[in-house]
Amino acid sequence: MKISILGGGGFLGRKVAEALAANGRLGAREVTGLTLFDLHPPASLDAPFPVTCLGGDITTLPPEAIPPETEVIFHLAAVVSAAAEADYDLGRRVNLRGTDAVIDACRALAKPPRVVFTSSVASFSGGQGAMLPDDARQMPRNSYGAQKAAAELLLSDASRRGFLDAVNIRLPTIAIRPGLPNKAASSFISAILREPLLGLPTTLPVAEDFKVWIASPGFATAWLLHAASMDSAPLGVDRGVNPPGICASVGAMMDAMESVRPGTRALVTPAPDATVAAIVGEWPAAFAASRAPALGFARHGTLAALVEEFLAHDLEETRAMRDR
Amino acid sequence: MKISILGGGGFLGRKVAEALAANGRLGAREVTGLTLFDLHPPASLDAPFPVTCLGGDITTLPPEAIPPETEVIFHLAAVVSAAAEADYDLGRRVNLRGTDAVIDACRALAKPPRVVFTSSVASFSGGQGAMLPDDARQMPRNSYGAQKAAAELLLSDASRRGFLDAVNIRLPTIAIRPGLPNKAASSFISAILREPLLGLPTTLPVAEDFKVWIASPGFATAWLLHAASMDSAPLGVDRGVNPPGICASVGAMMDAMESVRPGTRALVTPAPDATVAAIVGEWPAAFAASRAPALGFARHGTLAALVEEFLAHDLEETRAMRDR
Repeated sequence: MKISILGGGGFLGRKVAEALAANGRLGAREVTGLTLFDLHPPASLDAPFPVTCLGGDITTLPPEAIPPETEVIFHLAAVVSAAAEADYDLGRRVNLRGTDAVIDACRALAKPPRVVFTSSVASFSGGQGAMLPDDARQMPRNSYGAQKAAAELLLSDASRRGFLDAVNIRLPTIAIRPGLPNKAASSFISAILREPLLGLPTTLPVAEDFKVWIASPGFATAWLLHAASMDSAPLGVDRGVNPPGICASVGAMMDAMESVRPGTRALVTPAPDATVAAIVGEWPAAFAASRAPALGFARHGTLAALVEEFLAHDLEETRAMRDR
Repeated sequence: MKISILGGGGFLGRKVAEALAANGRLGAREVTGLTLFDLHPPASLDAPFPVTCLGGDITTLPPEAIPPETEVIFHLAAVVSAAAEADYDLGRRVNLRGTDAVIDACRALAKPPRVVFTSSVASFSGGQGAMLPDDARQMPRNSYGAQKAAAELLLSDASRRGFLDAVNIRLPTIAIRPGLPNKAASSFISAILREPLLGLPTTLPVAEDFKVWIASPGFATAWLLHAASMDSAPLGVDRGVNPPGICASVGAMMDAMESVRPGTRALVTPAPDATVAAIVGEWPAAFAASRAPALGFARHGTLAALVEEFLAHDLEETRAMRDR
């Protein structure tokens, strides 16, 4: 089967591509070609199938980005939260019109492809006290979340019409993200583990009992691959899936780190930041996520396993990135 | 204050324009100018303020459609349910891109205007057994509803950003619509009252205990005017309002008609239509609508009053239309 990854140069797109290259298959099917599309042509990778790398604008999606007979599209191309908040036009263009362009490309295919779309917890609101059921209303408090929720509606409708076959995954905050701290309000959620594991000091802008809804890069990748190969019939009209992340306090996350690598927790210094706390305080930290396991989405591992995953898979790359 | 009605040539746009012309005011404020915009220039009307009529495409909204200093915009321009289902591109263009064009026009104004947007019960699903709370998830089963729900998300986000100040009203099915029966699956909901009141026979495609969520043209107009002049602060981030329609069985609707005009009920003949029943059977018929009265939206009158309203305000015009 032929597969395209839109946003194939991003962190998760790369993880999905690497998993496909390592397995040579998606579910029970052999992969016969992979196209990686991003704003700039992504770097290629060694794989047991041909890999094509293309650069371009998602809103004027070149036909080569989704070749004829493509059966699976990972639509991960997005302007993320801080950027969509800073530049309304850019966010709307990429996150909404880009999704329209993907829908139109699917309509041109002979057979409706599976489209795995990454939506986000940022499409919900509720805050620390909320426990969101699987059918919770999406009432975002940021443009990124609004655009993601609107794109979900368009993809669900396009599925109902038979243009494509969408699975919309509302990914939790990903931790531990490899690489560098960034300006996102959520940056600290990875930094409080990643920086100490690199032997570096960092700060905690919220209280230790502040809860977050997180998932490791490995589980996020596994969920995207499952969404690409699962039977979509049980979804019915509801194409949205809240995968089973973990609701954890930042204190518990640091405790897990300390248990795996003693001495690291002392590298985190409290530095309350009201601005950061106000933004992340609006994000729900707890989801029922009871539908996803029944659909075959793997239950998340422990916080200690999340730390171990970083040490095993992302520590060296992150260290190398820092040294460059 | 200056007001624009986008979709000012439609049935509800006309009712809103007529109410403004009759009152000369919106809430406590004097109307100083009204612009009616539609695909074709709407007919003008006698009013105590200047009325400008313009034709054009909503997706390339001419600046004159929303003149400088406009304070209230009724955004009623839409490709309706059956048309949006028949022509996906047209529905997406008008219902979504058109809303983007309205948002952009608002961004060009010096002061964020109130935008009253007509969303729809078609943006929900649930069917006969459901009772939808005010925060029900919008999971539409038709392209029109999906586009309306997506447009609500964009308008709510634009409100949060301060580009405009939206109130998104999910109108019930309007009955009794004046004019002619049409091809919409919901056409019978008005026809079972309108046709007999005109002395004409008609058919009932569903069972007598089939329930619908309806509102009269008069209440719909009053709600739109209230939404245009109310204090929006109590809405907070949730810009969606389910106004207090009536949940009625079609049998009860016909009973009310019979009580007002004896002899009319016998003009309705049962003619079960599985196709129509399947479509309208997916629409929810009961909403809690408990938030709207607290926000000042008038509670709906009785079914008998709904029949009387048609006789007083729309019977003659409908008869004249039929004679033309």
